[in-house]
Amino acid sequence: MTKFFVICSLCFFLPIQAQKLTSFVNPFVGTKNMGHTFPGATAPFGMVQLSPETNQEPYAIDGKYNPETYRYCSGYQFEDKTIFGFSHTHFSGVGHSDLGDFLVMPTTGKLNLEPGKIGEPKSGYHSQFSKNTEKAEPGFYEVFLDDYGIKAELTTSERVGFHRYTFPKSGESHIILDLMSNIYNYDGKNVWTFVRVEDNQTVVGYRETTGWARTKKVFFAMKFSKPFKNYGRKRYEKVEYNGFYRKFNENENFPEFAGRQIRAYFDFDTEKDEQILVKFALSNTSTNGALKNLEAEIPHWDFDKVKAETSAKWEKELSKIEVETLNENDKKTFYTALYHTMMSPILYEDVDGKYRGLDQNIRESEGFTNYSIFSLWDTYRALHPLYNIIQPKRNNDFVHSMMAHYDQSVHKALPIWSHYANENWCMIGYHSVSVIADAIAKGTTDIDLNKALAAAINSSNLKYYDGIEDYLKYGYVPEDKSSSSVSKTLEYAYDDWAIAQIAKKLGDKSTENLYLKRSESYKRVYNPKTGFMQPKLSYANFKKEFDPMDTHGQGFIEGNAFNYGLYVPQNVPEMIKMMGGKKKFSKHLDEIFTTEIADKYIEKNEDITRDGIIGNYVHGNEPGHHIPYLYNWTGDAWKTQERVRMIMRKMYSAEEDGLCGNDDAGQMSAWYVFSALGFYPVLPGSVEYQIGSPLVKSAKISLENGEFLNITTENQSEKNVYVKKILVNGKEVKNHVLKHSEIANGGEIVFVMSDKH
Amino acid sequence: MTKFFVICSLCFFLPIQAQKLTSFVNPFVGTKNMGHTFPGATAPFGMVQLSPETNQEPYAIDGKYNPETYRYCSGYQFEDKTIFGFSHTHFSGVGHSDLGDFLVMPTTGKLNLEPGKIGEPKSGYHSQFSKNTEKAEPGFYEVFLDDYGIKAELTTSERVGFHRYTFPKSGESHIILDLMSNIYNYDGKNVWTFVRVEDNQTVVGYRETTGWARTKKVFFAMKFSKPFKNYGRKRYEKVEYNGFYRKFNENENFPEFAGRQIRAYFDFDTEKDEQILVKFALSNTSTNGALKNLEAEIPHWDFDKVKAETSAKWEKELSKIEVETLNENDKKTFYTALYHTMMSPILYEDVDGKYRGLDQNIRESEGFTNYSIFSLWDTYRALHPLYNIIQPKRNNDFVHSMMAHYDQSVHKALPIWSHYANENWCMIGYHSVSVIADAIAKGTTDIDLNKALAAAINSSNLKYYDGIEDYLKYGYVPEDKSSSSVSKTLEYAYDDWAIAQIAKKLGDKSTENLYLKRSESYKRVYNPKTGFMQPKLSYANFKKEFDPMDTHGQGFIEGNAFNYGLYVPQNVPEMIKMMGGKKKFSKHLDEIFTTEIADKYIEKNEDITRDGIIGNYVHGNEPGHHIPYLYNWTGDAWKTQERVRMIMRKMYSAEEDGLCGNDDAGQMSAWYVFSALGFYPVLPGSVEYQIGSPLVKSAKISLENGEFLNITTENQSEKNVYVKKILVNGKEVKNHVLKHSEIANGGEIVFVMSDKH
Repeated sequence: MTKFFVICSLCFFLPIQAQKLTSFVNPFVGTKNMGHTFPGATAPFGMVQLSPETNQEPYAIDGKYNPETYRYCSGYQFEDKTIFGFSHTHFSGVGHSDLGDFLVMPTTGKLNLEPGKIGEPKSGYHSQFSKNTEKAEPGFYEVFLDDYGIKAELTTSERVGFHRYTFPKSGESHIILDLMSNIYNYDGKNVWTFVRVEDNQTVVGYRETTGWARTKKVFFAMKFSKPFKNYGRKRYEKVEYNGFYRKFNENENFPEFAGRQIRAYFDFDTEKDEQILVKFALSNTSTNGALKNLEAEIPHWDFDKVKAETSAKWEKELSKIEVETLNENDKKTFYTALYHTMMSPILYEDVDGKYRGLDQNIRESEGFTNYSIFSLWDTYRALHPLYNIIQPKRNNDFVHSMMAHYDQSVHKALPIWSHYANENWCMIGYHSVSVIADAIAKGTTDIDLNKALAAAINSSNLKYYDGIEDYLKYGYVPEDKSSSSVSKTLEYAYDDWAIAQIAKKLGDKSTENLYLKRSESYKRVYNPKTGFMQPKLSYANFKKEFDPMDTHGQGFIEGNAFNYGLYVPQNVPEMIKMMGGKKKFSKHLDEIFTTEIADKYIEKNEDITRDGIIGNYVHGNEPGHHIPYLYNWTGDAWKTQERVRMIMRKMYSAEEDGLCGNDDAGQMSAWYVFSALGFYPVLPGSVEYQIGSPLVKSAKISLENGEFLNITTENQSEKNVYVKKILVNGKEVKNHVLKHSEIANGGEIVFVMSDKH
Repeated sequence: MTKFFVICSLCFFLPIQAQKLTSFVNPFVGTKNMGHTFPGATAPFGMVQLSPETNQEPYAIDGKYNPETYRYCSGYQFEDKTIFGFSHTHFSGVGHSDLGDFLVMPTTGKLNLEPGKIGEPKSGYHSQFSKNTEKAEPGFYEVFLDDYGIKAELTTSERVGFHRYTFPKSGESHIILDLMSNIYNYDGKNVWTFVRVEDNQTVVGYRETTGWARTKKVFFAMKFSKPFKNYGRKRYEKVEYNGFYRKFNENENFPEFAGRQIRAYFDFDTEKDEQILVKFALSNTSTNGALKNLEAEIPHWDFDKVKAETSAKWEKELSKIEVETLNENDKKTFYTALYHTMMSPILYEDVDGKYRGLDQNIRESEGFTNYSIFSLWDTYRALHPLYNIIQPKRNNDFVHSMMAHYDQSVHKALPIWSHYANENWCMIGYHSVSVIADAIAKGTTDIDLNKALAAAINSSNLKYYDGIEDYLKYGYVPEDKSSSSVSKTLEYAYDDWAIAQIAKKLGDKSTENLYLKRSESYKRVYNPKTGFMQPKLSYANFKKEFDPMDTHGQGFIEGNAFNYGLYVPQNVPEMIKMMGGKKKFSKHLDEIFTTEIADKYIEKNEDITRDGIIGNYVHGNEPGHHIPYLYNWTGDAWKTQERVRMIMRKMYSAEEDGLCGNDDAGQMSAWYVFSALGFYPVLPGSVEYQIGSPLVKSAKISLENGEFLNITTENQSEKNVYVKKILVNGKEVKNHVLKHSEIANGGEIVFVMSDKH
């Protein structure tokens, strides 16, 4: 009796959340089909993203694009059975790619430096593996390499990858460092590699590549837990010049290699079950920077300690939103989505604050932490708004990093899509201004507003960028001057609205008015005769032969007039009016969700696949992510509620195919996190959210100011998708609008759910 | 009468040296045939060496070495009539090559970015020019470009090249920046180039190349005196990846270019005789470093000011030795030689002391100034010993730079032949130890002696370097293990003696003895049966079929048993004894100077040409430079006197063909400077000089400690080549040995000359 009481007392004091939130994360979500996530190990927003590569096909074969490339944007596909090794940099969920730096692979037996071909076991250093040996959790990945009998375990700190390989007994154990392996690889991608073997346990070096990041440099420092007995390298390029190095046998035990195409190896004798550990630090400044990062972050050899610490970091980040759900799968889907919102932007500075600037000069972050990987066409929509709730301090660092980019930009422009000290110019718009306006509106940034406005203005007037000169001249982008002209016009108009908000904050009335005027440009590409946004020409009116279903050559990019043509978040009422009023508009929305798009329209469009389509609504890509919420303006908010619940069910799951398209650096996941909580930022840069239909039963959001935002539901169920009543801090909300000020200092949202609208 | 008196008074007070010493320098000396010097502008030991390129032939055509390449080690040949442009980095007098970075060329008319072919005017941007328009003096170069009617003038500060182009009236004036142009160029030499047009007068960027320096990076900042109206670039590589840059027209007015093969242009309107100036700063750390160098060194646009300042710097350096000569030509030859001793090592740090280390990390020189370009197999012989007299402070910087190289070397080795943060491993030996031992012996360095000894010991035990493992095992380098084995054995033995001197200074008796023992290794490759040094095998005795005249496959490199086989400076008496005594040895020396070497022996040997040969004595290359002085040990010092005077007359002049072989970074010129003053450092690392026969009438050497070394002659004349009597500080010297202590604090040397010995 006494005993029982004691136990119960303990129970009482145990945290309610007995199961760790990390246990609900399935890193394999999105690794099947086109999610383009990776299952490997990383710390939240970490520089090192250490993950297996299951493909080595080149991006181009004989000058022709290899369509397989797109599937391997993150280096991995769930159904593969071959692993080539583990490399240290990856994108999460992108639709174009790069990275895959520093592939490490342990092997046994006769040394083979060729990667080998899939389906041809022993043809190279790759290995077969069985799916049941593969495990992944936040900050940890494990697999058994069948061909060599090696167990591979990976963890990381922010800047250091940590490998633990358990070898069989062998006099021929190897660890290969393949410096030729790349994601989106092609002959010519490697620019230069430089390696020094500092002692029999330490190797440093760097690699320069070109590609999506045109001038990319990554430095490393690699430490082995055990001295290698022998090492060497092979150069694979057509060697044109060897100079006086020819006097050496550089292939074996010569401590300095450099060249365009190099693979290196390190040999060991191993006992049965002997573990060899490798710490692999990255830096973007120098090999000394990498060594410093290595010593600062992992000065010991305790793999399990790092694994536990990184797991605790994830637990901390995930616990910023504690949810109760209708079932365990929903919880898994939710925490996996939340996990995927923290894979990028990545930390992009050394432990001492040094980082590589856009101009390739080494700088020091002052008063902020520098980050890279800004997939802004995607992430301004919901990911940065999410950060403004659960990661405002870090989002301020992101904004500062974007301002630093502007300072360093020769174009004097904010980032479009930037990674690794490069602007890759991907997609359209100048959406940095949205991220900045959103942070300003929500009071999460301390940047200089005048400078921010100047940066935004410059970015919006970069004449040679994507039809802007003509946009300024004609008030819209003419299709004959610059393709994807409607998408551009719509996005520029929205971005201009965001700039107006920055000007407004500063009381700069004339700039505000100028940009508010620019924000109406969407009207110029609207054809009242068809009821669609349509491509307009510079010398005439609308382009003839218009097909609103077509995603090619109709003025849109990765979308059509249906699913891209409603992008006027800055003035939804005006758009609805322009398009014939609420009723007509609501019907138009219905049509989007119910009219099936024919295959021919989505062929040759990597970013739109059948998986992510509902009718003609494309959830697998970003331009329509706000569409389900537009019913809120038509008086049919119940349809928003119905649709978002349906999308959450159809387009997300906790399985490997749980993403219906590229996660796009976390935007797809951020959509889910917001929608599951019951609201969504249709207009970033404003202080309003549109209320949808929560999927969670309850959520407790810990804010950085120490306050809590509690979301509760009544009568929540699978069927009860309709929101009968919304109470925000005790007051009923009727317009389906939630204000940031109502949640920023904590609060209560109560959703009363029903199966009827 | 009064008037006359006044004029005379003025005369009296005028400095004796009315004519500037710079006026005696002819930078064209050595630019014809194989001197490999360049005529362009540079400051003493300057980082920027701005000089015309008269050839653009690739180093290899279809994988085959182009023999023309060797002629253009410095980018220029005197007889050429075509200039391709002016580039900013050059070697002076080397026998292999690299550099030629950042070629700038002004043109008019239709833009042509192709270099064009020699002999085909207007086939490219190159221009014809007439020799009579070409002028060169220390720190200045001028030429008229006939094809465009442009006068080009060049000057430099240490780190900044300064161009002044006087254009004709034209609406199509251009300045081309060719980033593909290289010395020793070949497809693949360019690794990467990166350029930013910061504003309409400022361009920054960098280039990475491979080649002799395997991993070389040079950064630049370029400023135009006038805004360009237009600019652009063309990429010449097979472009494999363009990413999202394809949305731009990057060819014109797009401010960021990067790629492997790029040529850029800047367009201007010019009035008749309008001058456009270009300041072009270099850095080895970053573009910001280059900008800093530019602003610090040339903050204005006054070309003539910089020209005058650099001329004054040269005047100051040249005036360290004021000579009177038998005729004006001798004075020109002397000051040109002295000029050529100050083309390298070059300053290799930014104005703030930052420089690129061997490991590619950026460092800061602390307590010294960092230099690069150490052609040590050449320069340890006479150039560094010369610095120990007239540039001891700078030589101390050189020694510190070599120690910094050691600190950064992954091999933990002192430099062999280093340039631009790279070890190129050229030639044989580990002669840094000689330079260090010489500086220690002469008290000109403040380096840590213990560290210096450790560095020297490591360098001499680098097993994988050039047969050292076998040298240590066998006591000589066996020819079957490592070719050029006799040369290596002889040089290692000498270097080991130098290391013994460092140990001796430290009182480290056991190391001294060990290295003294190693220094006797030369004995093991001497064949008493033939009287020659000969290649020995590891498993047997001497290699059979030996031809002492042959320069190929006989155990020597760039020499034969006659002219390379007497390299035992550390123990000449022992060598003479070993070779049969003074009389026999003296005859052997005579034979060297009088037996004609057949053509077949010097074919296929770039570094030995007919120009530099007297009998079988090769003055055009280094291994025999001490040979004329060896008569001093045979009792026939008069022959030394006769030979050195003869060599000075035959092998040097003040004309463009005034060097009989590669100047070898100044060693050939240093031989002349020493010999013309009457003495020579046969054994660097010792405190003794061998006395020869001065060519000058008198010399006043200003020492850095404020003292003067005065050299005077009596009865000096063309015929009076014999030294009848030598008085050093009033005391007669009979053994033909001058001690460093007798001159280091100033002194008097009087040579009494005669036409009889």
